[in-house]
Amino acid sequence: MTLHPSVAAVRLGVRRVLATHGPGAVVVVACSGGADSTALLSAAVFEGHKLGQRIVGVTVDHGLQPGSADTARLVVERMVAIGADETVTAAVQVQAVGLGPEAAARQARHAVLEEVAERLGATVVLLGHTLDDQAETVLLGLTRGSGGRSLAGMRASYDVFARPLLGVRRDDTVTACQVEGLDVWQDPHNDDPGYTRVRVRHRVLPVLEEELGPGIAEALARTAEQLREDTELLDATAADALERMARPLPVADLAALPDALRRRVLHRAALEAGAPPGELFREHVVAVDSLVTDWRGQKWVDLPGHLRALRRGDALVLERA
Amino acid sequence: MTLHPSVAAVRLGVRRVLATHGPGAVVVVACSGGADSTALLSAAVFEGHKLGQRIVGVTVDHGLQPGSADTARLVVERMVAIGADETVTAAVQVQAVGLGPEAAARQARHAVLEEVAERLGATVVLLGHTLDDQAETVLLGLTRGSGGRSLAGMRASYDVFARPLLGVRRDDTVTACQVEGLDVWQDPHNDDPGYTRVRVRHRVLPVLEEELGPGIAEALARTAEQLREDTELLDATAADALERMARPLPVADLAALPDALRRRVLHRAALEAGAPPGELFREHVVAVDSLVTDWRGQKWVDLPGHLRALRRGDALVLERA
Repeated sequence: MTLHPSVAAVRLGVRRVLATHGPGAVVVVACSGGADSTALLSAAVFEGHKLGQRIVGVTVDHGLQPGSADTARLVVERMVAIGADETVTAAVQVQAVGLGPEAAARQARHAVLEEVAERLGATVVLLGHTLDDQAETVLLGLTRGSGGRSLAGMRASYDVFARPLLGVRRDDTVTACQVEGLDVWQDPHNDDPGYTRVRVRHRVLPVLEEELGPGIAEALARTAEQLREDTELLDATAADALERMARPLPVADLAALPDALRRRVLHRAALEAGAPPGELFREHVVAVDSLVTDWRGQKWVDLPGHLRALRRGDALVLERA
Repeated sequence: MTLHPSVAAVRLGVRRVLATHGPGAVVVVACSGGADSTALLSAAVFEGHKLGQRIVGVTVDHGLQPGSADTARLVVERMVAIGADETVTAAVQVQAVGLGPEAAARQARHAVLEEVAERLGATVVLLGHTLDDQAETVLLGLTRGSGGRSLAGMRASYDVFARPLLGVRRDDTVTACQVEGLDVWQDPHNDDPGYTRVRVRHRVLPVLEEELGPGIAEALARTAEQLREDTELLDATAADALERMARPLPVADLAALPDALRRRVLHRAALEAGAPPGELFREHVVAVDSLVTDWRGQKWVDLPGHLRALRRGDALVLERA
């Protein structure tokens, strides 16, 4: 029997990640019951068991919809049927403090997954994001217009998390489930056009594929990968430069940096001084930058978080207004 | 009489550029007769004459359409009516050598504009690209999926060229011409859906604005600006690193570089060795990179331009196959 290419694609992504973990490793797989995470769990069971690893399926119940506890029970049954060595249902309370509902749910989910992983001694938590999710993230980042950082998409791995399917199309996870006879659950949020991400998925990406040619999702994912490399290097270099600088910041040291670095240094300095990350935009940084590169005796620049930036002699000062 | 905001926006963009050139400066304005370059010429006449500058309108006849000579004559009449101190019609032969028809026409146009500028002793050539052109360029770059370089859009200035309207919406140039009573000519190419750029303009951007909210064009333009800063810094750093390296390239030196720099160094090294720029893609660079970071005794990596990359002891060699 030949392996179906969609099943093979999912397994290959998973194998590459699990091969870096030893036999006996405990692997947590986050599973919502959707096609992507169901295909992920199935591949993790297949590949992980070959490597002598223990696969734990975890489903998170946000309690956001009526009947969500029933859904969680159903997902647990399916995870058992797929062959998970252990299953966990984690209930979370979503508290949105200064975050949108999607970001708050994500944060709560990641926190509980980390907790479960630590309790079980797991070395990795697999998340089911696909190449399509990555492309959508890049397009959503474009709307923010804040450069490489917002276009760099999702990381293939960070902390205990890994995303083995970032190179796999969503359709392949759907097909893999069909081929393997796995029932999947469709999150009603996935069709609610009230979410920007849903409109990107169902309206924006199809138009891009139609007008600019197929392969646009892959091109967006490649873009994200390269911009992530670039952004990580520039951010690290800027962090270094800021750390080595005297306080208050000497204008001459700032002026000696190339634009891309100086603006990143000023961005970090504003965060350090207490500017809220979600409210600090490029226009603020550019305004602060003008105190360095276009000094004409300006008074000060107001920044979010009741801060102001001003020149004091040959130094740039960031202080509470 | 109050100044119409669209006229003001166009003039502000032009004033910022012309203010950096002295009185008596000769300023060339490239004018196709479309709304953007017509509004540009009108603003250049207004602002330039206040600064004591001499404004030369240049229209380029590509000879690509029947009647293009008549169009050029009409554009010259209009440039005179707008108040240009001198007008030039430059006929060019487009020879597409390894370029698409649009790129070939652009190259020929820029070459002849440079020639005219040199002959007239002009210090700057103004091009009429708007914020919308910039947003379209970013979207076109996305389809190539080659990271920051292809997303960085058009430069605000390079060599003798400057683009004063990169922060001005195309609609403002149309309105400015209407308000000023200037007739404009509509390039039939601008509505030909055979061009990818035209499809981006008429189909892709409107859908993005509808689904993701207005302001997407501005966000794309801001993204371009930041990615340009980033890309220029990283490219310069990579050029430096490559220049300082021994030949053949020591693997240890390459391996010591961060991903973003090492891949740029390898990209440059491949170009230096003779790989054609238009055919060298990220997948090639990643393959060469594996000879450095994932050495398992591979034979060689084939590159465009009949090149191959291979390990020879502790060095990476790029040579003709």
